[in-house]
Formats: sequence, structure tokens, C-alpha cells
Amino acid sequence: METNGKPDRTPSPHLPFGDQRSAPFYGKDILSVRQFSREDLAYIFGVAHEMREMVARVGTFDLLKGKILANLFYEPSTRTSSSFTAAMERLGGSVIPINEVKYSSVSKGESLPDTVRTLECYADVIVLRHPEVGASAEAANYARKPIINAGDGVGEHPTQALLDLFTILEELGEADGLTVTMLGDLKYGRTVHSLARLLSLYDVKLNYVSPEILRMPPEILAEVGAQDIPQTETRRLEDVLAATDVLYVTRVQKERFEDLADYEKVRGLYVITPETLAQAKERMILMHPLPRVGEISMEVDDDPRAAYFRQMEYGLYIRMALLAMVLGKA
Amino acid sequence: METNGKPDRTPSPHLPFGDQRSAPFYGKDILSVRQFSREDLAYIFGVAHEMREMVARVGTFDLLKGKILANLFYEPSTRTSSSFTAAMERLGGSVIPINEVKYSSVSKGESLPDTVRTLECYADVIVLRHPEVGASAEAANYARKPIINAGDGVGEHPTQALLDLFTILEELGEADGLTVTMLGDLKYGRTVHSLARLLSLYDVKLNYVSPEILRMPPEILAEVGAQDIPQTETRRLEDVLAATDVLYVTRVQKERFEDLADYEKVRGLYVITPETLAQAKERMILMHPLPRVGEISMEVDDDPRAAYFRQMEYGLYIRMALLAMVLGKA
Amino acid sequence: METNGKPDRTPSPHLPFGDQRSAPFYGKDILSVRQFSREDLAYIFGVAHEMREMVARVGTFDLLKGKILANLFYEPSTRTSSSFTAAMERLGGSVIPINEVKYSSVSKGESLPDTVRTLECYADVIVLRHPEVGASAEAANYARKPIINAGDGVGEHPTQALLDLFTILEELGEADGLTVTMLGDLKYGRTVHSLARLLSLYDVKLNYVSPEILRMPPEILAEVGAQDIPQTETRRLEDVLAATDVLYVTRVQKERFEDLADYEKVRGLYVITPETLAQAKERMILMHPLPRVGEISMEVDDDPRAAYFRQMEYGLYIRMALLAMVLGKA
Repeated sequence: METNGKPDRTPSPHLPFGDQRSAPFYGKDILSVRQFSREDLAYIFGVAHEMREMVARVGTFDLLKGKILANLFYEPSTRTSSSFTAAMERLGGSVIPINEVKYSSVSKGESLPDTVRTLECYADVIVLRHPEVGASAEAANYARKPIINAGDGVGEHPTQALLDLFTILEELGEADGLTVTMLGDLKYGRTVHSLARLLSLYDVKLNYVSPEILRMPPEILAEVGAQDIPQTETRRLEDVLAATDVLYVTRVQKERFEDLADYEKVRGLYVITPETLAQAKERMILMHPLPRVGEISMEVDDDPRAAYFRQMEYGLYIRMALLAMVLGKA
Repeated sequence: METNGKPDRTPSPHLPFGDQRSAPFYGKDILSVRQFSREDLAYIFGVAHEMREMVARVGTFDLLKGKILANLFYEPSTRTSSSFTAAMERLGGSVIPINEVKYSSVSKGESLPDTVRTLECYADVIVLRHPEVGASAEAANYARKPIINAGDGVGEHPTQALLDLFTILEELGEADGLTVTMLGDLKYGRTVHSLARLLSLYDVKLNYVSPEILRMPPEILAEVGAQDIPQTETRRLEDVLAATDVLYVTRVQKERFEDLADYEKVRGLYVITPETLAQAKERMILMHPLPRVGEISMEVDDDPRAAYFRQMEYGLYIRMALLAMVLGKA
Repeated sequence: METNGKPDRTPSPHLPFGDQRSAPFYGKDILSVRQFSREDLAYIFGVAHEMREMVARVGTFDLLKGKILANLFYEPSTRTSSSFTAAMERLGGSVIPINEVKYSSVSKGESLPDTVRTLECYADVIVLRHPEVGASAEAANYARKPIINAGDGVGEHPTQALLDLFTILEELGEADGLTVTMLGDLKYGRTVHSLARLLSLYDVKLNYVSPEILRMPPEILAEVGAQDIPQTETRRLEDVLAATDVLYVTRVQKERFEDLADYEKVRGLYVITPETLAQAKERMILMHPLPRVGEISMEVDDDPRAAYFRQMEYGLYIRMALLAMVLGKA
């Protein structure tokens, strides 16, 4: 694991035992999927699995009672923001919601470093969503308190990638040996890039299904290929569907096409219906980062293989785990 | 009581005793005043009265500690939103505030069912305000967790109607035998429609005072009349004021009039002043759903019969009661 | 201390002991720095210092558990709003965030008195930010619950002034005997006006450094002078820097200048750099209310005399102290 070494990190006065200070991730930032080794992931998913069991058993518990999260969103994302809020509240902590940065004095020409240094006077951890690539890393560079990247433009959204992988592990038991098919807009889709990177730590096969103009970028192909991961590109889902264990669907946005006729042609090909699933394995899962706008028919929702709402719930456990970990309480 | 049967309702893991699961309203949705029998109302108001006494005695208590409310407002309503937030917090629970749906990714073409199915991954109950009639029923149809309708367009706003009736009961002891006069815009006023429906379960007389173009709609008159409730329509408050036990005032909006002169003429007639109350009973109450913009003079505020701010407070107890009930804790 | 006598102030049902009701500031409003005597300030700063020590020792504590703050912001101010939210949460209380008043039904023509009388049905204390001078005093006039002024237009922002003075006391031990230099826009800067007023209760010297068109207003000079405080005005920081114990920097806004060349000339003079601090005392502090937009170089941040981020943190303790005090828990 890359440490985001913070020279002046003062141990929280809450910690009764010194050994918690040496817990992995205590006081660390969560900035990028690249910072995690396979051992790190096993640790995170172990904690997230415990969170899942605790929520099922008791709903909430006071692990982070008295801790405060500043939920700093420079662009709106109700889904991610709500998920972090719920994660903090289910652990007994409190939240400072900051959802309207563009209207507020925080943004009146103030630099991001100044904003985070102000907020860390009030809070114990900062979750940051920002439209610019690298914003979280810049914030982390100045902050004494842990920063969790909740999406920095077309950059990274590491907690999304972690919850995607956690979904696969919780649903199918393990990642090794799986065939994962990514479908839709693979060029601009931040989630599939991060997930491909994370999966390349495991013994998987990856299929990429997309229209020609939305193919997976060469740098991702190269990075994943360097890990000796078999990769297959195709325009036709039927080429790879039968062998697929995980079908990860993303949205194809109309705006990406110069010719609308091209869009309409492509669009129909990539809508998942009960007929699609009839061609798929009995034991596989269908994932989507949501929101969906037609890529997956609602008729599919009752199929037990439809995992996308469970995926949202796994996100809660991942975020609970990360918050507890960086605050030294996992 | 109509049950909004949810086939897959899983009992909350918080419940220590199985018998709570059979508590009335546990796991149910609160969608419409039409779902309540007179017995249901007696039960709700009993719980709300206990909430009132608890708040007076201890301010807050931890009945819903560890429970999370998603406060999902597709249109702004600070009053209702704040009231639900306070209700949850006074019961020791937490809130995910979602007030900016129009700016957020939740609304980027995502269907309401998908949004509520996402939020119920994080929360234990969802309060929904939405501009479209029927939105709450649609949400409830998909959600596994309880939905509380906090207003669906010109449709219903059942917690408002419940707090209105609870105000009458707490202030005057009982509803049977009362004469209730509704004043102002009776055509478009959602609150008076719902309140008239609820009151028709009791032995009351109803007076409707409005300008010609803002009369109570025929379907409400028919529905209430079917319960053998005496109803009187008039344009002049003085015809009915002396016999009135409850005077319920609503706003007359300028936009409803084609001819502004008509508006100005009508408007003065329906402003409640100390002179108005001088003609009213000693023991009666003056209500208004607020906000008011001139319908009731501020000079009236100190009259003990002016119940509109107490009405706001009764709203807190009703919402505390409903949250506790649908979460199986009442 | 001026009492904002509220005839109907009912003691909180939370108070186990009657004597707490006679605690200074219990049930009082915090509206203006003018309401405080030097004894009041000593009391407030004593409580704030205890808050600082408690936060350092245990992070949060449940002094205000069960209490609810309505954080009512008619104009956005993330910094102040977040600080009050954190203060309430660190004391175990809850917050109703109301940040979007302009979009909400609260503002649909409703008067401020009606809004606060509604919110006090739900909350135990109201923090109010409003664009109009005197708004807090008007709100306090109608409210039964305590109002804390979080800025009313060009009027007052008393908690900012208190945190500024508290910073000086915590950093330098005492105010008596200090030379305080205020720099930048002294004409429109609400913070320097309030701070000068508060400092005039102590045995200080005040220096005012500004361009000609942004000089301290005559009424402030007169008010402070009436307390026999030595005051010096100059355009050149170097005239007074060497003798300065507290250098309080404010933003010079381009919009104040008719001639942009004047602005550019002035602007450079008032940027604090490591070279500036090289001319200053070893034991002095550099303050700024933040946000800064260039008045203080980031190169200065690591100098131990740079107190502006610590100043933010002192604001947390002041707001914790005030909330505890007006709720009778200090």
C-alpha cells in the first residue's frame, strides 16, 4: 500500500490503545484504486463484510460516536453523498453536509487547500467530490485529517470501484477464475476503468463489449495486459455472454455520437432484457453503477441475478469500512 | 385500515420482541387520509399525545436511535422537511437530507422507483415530497421500506391533515359536535380537501366560506355529503362565524383571479383581525396551515384562540408518532 | 450585560436543577458585541477554553444531547454554517440545516417572525444568517427560544468578533498591553469594526493600515476613542509592523476602487509574505477571517505566527460555548 504520509498526523485523542494507531489505513487518505495491494483489498473487504453482518444484526452501532464527517461535494451526487451520510450515521457518527459549494462563500475564490484546512478544524474526516482530476490528491497534500476521494472529475472514484469488486466477492465468493464482461461506454466510463484496474490484481478474464467509438482506452488495455490478464474486445454481447460470470453494464450517452442514427442502432443492442438473461449462466450477476436510463429493462429487476440494488447496499458497507479504518476504529 | 401490503417486508432486526411486528402500521406506508378508519385515527392521536407529553417532560428520547430517515424532497418545503427532521432527531434517529433533487444525479433521468430502491439500501424509512400526484403510491409500490407521503402535488398531504385534526382534538377535546368553518381558497387548497375528508368520519357540521370562483369542488361535497355531514356554503363569514368552533383559514392567491379588482374586493373580506374574533365564540380556535401572507393579521397572534403556531408544534408530535409507528416502535 | 428579556421564557424541561436557570446567558439571545461587558467576555472565554480542553481530551461529549439547533441561513455561508453544525454535533446535539431559504416555502412571502416562530416549535435554539441589518434583533423580539446572530448584512457578526478576540487571548495570554494592527479594507469590513469595539474594553493600542478610500469609519474611531484607546491611522504597514502584536488582515476588494490602477498599486502593498513577517516580532500572531484570496501568501502558512487556521478552530470552541450557555448547560 502506498502511504500518503502525513508528517504531522496527530493520533486521535479518542484512541484508548496505542496499537490502534498502527492499524492499517489509520489516518490514511483513500485517493485511488492504485494505492491498494491485493492484501489491502482483502483487509478492506473483511471489514466491510463485518459491517454487513453488524447492520443485519443490529442496524447501527456506535463505533464512530463523536466523530464528524465533512461531506464536501463541489458537484451534486445525491447517491454517493447519501451513501457516505448513511455510513457515518450507521456507525453513530455525525455529518456536516456541504452540498452547495458553488453558491457558498467557501467557493468565493478560496483555494481548495484553504477550504479543507478550514473544514478539518471542525471535522475528523473529509469526503471530497470535485469536478477536477487530482483535486483529492491536492486536498490530501494539505490536510492533516484523512481525505476520501468520492470522485474527482474523469479521474478516480475509488469507493465505487471497491464496492463493485466487493459486490462480486460477496455474490460469487471469489474473483479468481471469473469472466467479467463490461458493456456499454467503455471509453468515458470512469467506473469500468477503475474496476478493470482492480480486477487485474486477480486471476480473471475480461471482455469488453462496446460500439467502435466507445472502446476501452489503449492505456487501460496496456495496464491490465501488463498483469497478464486475458482481454477480449467485441461489439457483440452474444459473443461472450454465455461464458460471463459478471456482466457489468454502463450507460451509453447519446451525446457521444456524431450521428444520431448510429446511436439508435447501438442503443438497442445493449439493452438488457429477460431475453438477454435467458442466454446467460444460471449463476452469474448483472451489475450497473446506477442511475440507469434504459440500459437494463425493469422487467429484469426480479431476476435473482440482477444485483444492482444489492450493489448499492454493498456500497454502504464499503464506506462504513473505510470511515472506520481511516479513523482507527476498524 | 387499508394495508399497503408489501410481500417481502422483512422485520427489522432491531425488534427484540416478535409481537411488535404485529403492531398496527408497522412497516406500512402513509399515503392518503383515505387509508384511515376512525379507530386508526384514535390510535395515531393516542401515540401523538404521548409524544407531546414525552417532549414536554424530557425533550427527546432514544426510541428510534440507530434508525435513519431519508428525507427526499423533489420540491422545496422547508417547513415540512424541518418538521420531519426534528421529529426523527427528537426520537434519537438520524436523517439523510435530500433537498436538491433537481440538481442531483438522482434526477438525471432516473425513475422514482429506482431512486427509492437505492435510498432504501441506506435508510429505514423514506419521507417523500414530489410534484406529481400519485408519486408516493408509485414509490410505495416498489419500496420494501415504509414510504410517508409528505405531499404529492395537488394530490394528498396526509400528515398535514392528521396534524390539523390532532390540533382540533388537543385544543377542544373532541371533534364530535363541532362546527368547523373553512375559509378562503377551497378550490385549490389541498389541506382543506383532506381535512374535510377526515372530519367526515366524525359527527361535525362543515361551513365553507369562499368567493364564488374558489368554492369547494363538487366531488368533495359529494364525498363528505355521503357521510351525512351537514354542509353549508356561503360567501360571507359573518353568516357562520358566531356558531363556529374551528375557523380554518387558507390563503387566497391573486393568481386565481382573472380580474384583479375581484381579487382586491374578496381579499379584504377574508382577512382575520381582532374585530373578526370579537364576533367569535370565547372557546374556539383559529387555524392556518402557514405560511400566511396577510390572511390573518399579526394583531391576532396574542389571542389565545390563535392556534396556528401551536398547530405547527402538533405537527411535530404527529410526525414523531408516524415515524415510530411505521418503524414498529410505538 | 444587556438582557434580551423574554417575558414568556419557559425553563427547559431538561434542566434537573433550578439553579441552572439563573446561569448567565441562559435563554438569552446573542445579537451584538455591544451586549457584552468585560466580565461577560471573561465568562464566555472561560467556557470556550473548557470546550477546547474537552475537545482535545475526548473529541465530543453529550452536554447538549437531545437538543436541536435550527441553522437558518438566508444567505449561504458554508464556513459559519459548518462551524455551528460541528459545534452542536460535538456537544451531542442535532441540527436542522436550512440553507436554501430563497428556494423554499419558508420564503414565499412569509415574514421572518413567522418563520422563527415556526422553527422554534421544532428546535431549542436558532442560529440566523440574514442579509438585512437588524434581522436577528427582529427575530429575537418574536422568538421564545434563543436566537444567535450569525451575521445580519453589514450589521453585526458577533460570534466572529468573539472568536477573533478569543484567538488573541488563547495565543498571547491576555489582551491588555497589546498593539493590534488592522490591515486592508477597514471601511466595509464588518469583522474589524466589531473587533475594534470589543478590544476597546481592554487596554490596547490600535493601528489602522489602509488605502485612503478604505479608512476606518469615523463613527468607529469616535466610539473606540471614547474609551481612551490610542489609535493610529497610516497607509504604510512598515510604520507600525515592528511594534505589532496582532496583525489582522482583511481582503481588499477590487470592486471598491474606481480606478483599477489604484487597486493594483494598493494591492501589492498589503500582501503578507515571508519578507513581511521577517520585519515582525518573534512573538506575534497573524490573523485573517478567511477566505483569503491572495492577501496572505501561502508561503507564510508554515510560520508558527500564522494563526488563521487556528483561528477557525477557536471559532468552534466559541460556538460550542455559546450554544451550551444559551441552553443553560455551561
